[in-house]
Amino acid sequence: MRVEIISIGDELLIGQVVNTNAAWMGRELTQRGFNVVGVTTVGDNSDAIMKAIDLSFQRADVVLLTGGVGPTKDDITKQTLCRYFRTNLEFNDDVLKNIESIFSKRNIQLNLLTRNQAYVPKNSTVIQNRVGTAPILCFNQGGKVLISMPGVPFEMKTSMREEVIPLLQAQFLPEYYLKCSYLVCGITESALATRLATFEEQLPLGFSLAYLPAYGYIRLRLSAWGKSRKLEMKNMDIKLKQLLGNELVADNDQSLEALLGEKLRTLNLSISTAESCTGGYLAHRITSIAGASSYFKGSIVSYDNQVKEELLHVDKQTIENVGAVSQEVVEQMAEQVAFTLKTNCSIAVSGFMGPDGGTLEKPVGTVWICTRFNNKKIAAVHRVGSSREENIKRTANMAILQLLRMLGR
Amino acid sequence: MRVEIISIGDELLIGQVVNTNAAWMGRELTQRGFNVVGVTTVGDNSDAIMKAIDLSFQRADVVLLTGGVGPTKDDITKQTLCRYFRTNLEFNDDVLKNIESIFSKRNIQLNLLTRNQAYVPKNSTVIQNRVGTAPILCFNQGGKVLISMPGVPFEMKTSMREEVIPLLQAQFLPEYYLKCSYLVCGITESALATRLATFEEQLPLGFSLAYLPAYGYIRLRLSAWGKSRKLEMKNMDIKLKQLLGNELVADNDQSLEALLGEKLRTLNLSISTAESCTGGYLAHRITSIAGASSYFKGSIVSYDNQVKEELLHVDKQTIENVGAVSQEVVEQMAEQVAFTLKTNCSIAVSGFMGPDGGTLEKPVGTVWICTRFNNKKIAAVHRVGSSREENIKRTANMAILQLLRMLGR
Repeated sequence: MRVEIISIGDELLIGQVVNTNAAWMGRELTQRGFNVVGVTTVGDNSDAIMKAIDLSFQRADVVLLTGGVGPTKDDITKQTLCRYFRTNLEFNDDVLKNIESIFSKRNIQLNLLTRNQAYVPKNSTVIQNRVGTAPILCFNQGGKVLISMPGVPFEMKTSMREEVIPLLQAQFLPEYYLKCSYLVCGITESALATRLATFEEQLPLGFSLAYLPAYGYIRLRLSAWGKSRKLEMKNMDIKLKQLLGNELVADNDQSLEALLGEKLRTLNLSISTAESCTGGYLAHRITSIAGASSYFKGSIVSYDNQVKEELLHVDKQTIENVGAVSQEVVEQMAEQVAFTLKTNCSIAVSGFMGPDGGTLEKPVGTVWICTRFNNKKIAAVHRVGSSREENIKRTANMAILQLLRMLGR
Repeated sequence: MRVEIISIGDELLIGQVVNTNAAWMGRELTQRGFNVVGVTTVGDNSDAIMKAIDLSFQRADVVLLTGGVGPTKDDITKQTLCRYFRTNLEFNDDVLKNIESIFSKRNIQLNLLTRNQAYVPKNSTVIQNRVGTAPILCFNQGGKVLISMPGVPFEMKTSMREEVIPLLQAQFLPEYYLKCSYLVCGITESALATRLATFEEQLPLGFSLAYLPAYGYIRLRLSAWGKSRKLEMKNMDIKLKQLLGNELVADNDQSLEALLGEKLRTLNLSISTAESCTGGYLAHRITSIAGASSYFKGSIVSYDNQVKEELLHVDKQTIENVGAVSQEVVEQMAEQVAFTLKTNCSIAVSGFMGPDGGTLEKPVGTVWICTRFNNKKIAAVHRVGSSREENIKRTANMAILQLLRMLGR
């Protein structure tokens, strides 16, 4: 069952908005055995949308459209769908009722533009949008299906989960997607590939191994289609894990922060962070996990050295002697935050994230990370790049990995 | 000058990775007058890549490929380019030298897989990758250009900035892209569209107005192609600003945190945050701006109530009486963090981000925000949705907007 996604919107082409919708849809669909074969992004342009639909129908059984269904003039998806399926708009009372109920909940007065959202193409089946005013539209064409959804992420996600995916599951028989994921750390991509060369050559037909290098680690994905290949997959999985050895950090697809959360929960540990250069990002990553409050107590973001001294009691003299980006300072920060916030574990980071700052000996990209667990601590220095955004992410990854490895597998 | 982007990688289709590359490229290219007309994402599949190239060449003058050029077996872009341009690989000594210099800098031993990256298609022109081992490959076909780059964001960005964009600027004459951006707050999309209806109808031919609703605000984009339309654009811009009135927060495309940073710098103010439910995300947003250290002092992330009491001196009795998600608590938090960190401004947030938690009167999605500026403070309650990730982002947006409006235009 092949699916194509068409993302509509000039804002995606000019890069004002990142296409997170397509990634989310790809993840949800693949997990359920739908094979996403392509994503096409086009602007708010009727001809471009028509052409994209045509091509997608050639390659796939299901075409999922998002975007271009708002009440404003620049949104032309509905008109284009009428053009493509040679039909006209007609007023739909159920859609109007839905819009009215949403507006009354939000305490907003209905205006003409919003009321116009109740016009839908004649030969479409309507799914009510429970969290927004633009209806979800379904079209059938020779056994193939096209579904148009809003581009607003929350509305798209709600429709996908509650309506679109169940509908697709009922109409098509999804294939069985087998996937094993691995998180590997402490080895380069090419060294890893060399180690796995024979394994890869001996992979059964239809199995594939993909390498996904990220900041500070590599993800591997072993995959195949078809339920009948379950036993083979199991054997390959065992072999691969043996080959990965000590470099294997996790045998699943969870984020670093989810792995850390699971580990802390299992070991019944609590954590706090003391952050200089990551400026709260590390705490954000940890608290992005639902239920993090059971192990995360808090963070002291000491961007300013005075805050390091007053709230984290870092020795003023130490900062003057060796600088805030130093082993001594991150060790004191990690120790003090664990003490103040009463946690078993802590992470402290201090570095120059750029683009400005740094010194001759410690250029932009120098970062010290200290992780603490009970009374043991590990401090390490790293050299990241020159892009601020990437440096912050990379530093957070390395910090979480350092603590994960300290806590053991 | 029309550009198409082809993003290659199974990880993009299955949603393991979000396609941030295409957005970045779209932004950089549009700013320089290149018209990005489409983005196609395909898997690591030779036939799919061939077809995508074919279609892109039909629609555009320049085709930019990213991904699939690593040293591992799953990367097949180079072989596919040979197939497409009917050529073979040949060894390139300059590429080998580049790889060797990169490996020696990183203190890693060269292995066969990495050495193989020095094989390039015979009829391609090679651009050295200064920050990675995969070469950038350029092909010419009947006045049209295809350039293949690595998918690693940092490598792609470096090549784009330093080599690819200058090359395109020299070979093609970019058009002139005129754009005005507006950030609007405190009005629904349809109410705004109603207010702007006449303005939109009277827009000169070739001008377009786009609406981009985001969490807590709307962005508007007025655009046109061609230097000759500069004066018209100026007039439209003046008219539009008048119509936006008090709802206009900014007349540019800057992020909320960049706007806040600029404002704080201009007014010579400092800021701190006290965060419960956003868990450091607000501090992260503020510190994502280079040079934030000149106004941001730090944050106390008090996820645990005990941390609220001990570090932020929130009254224990208040928490017991009215709960941590309350006006009283966020006011105390905002006051105390400004006092402890010695800042003129502060933001405090406390809420239930979900999916679990909340009470009958205060369900998941309830969030209190207090902003403080000198001795004035504003506290407001909001109701966000049920998705944790979106709630955190929305809360941060509303908090920054609240302070921005408090500081005045």
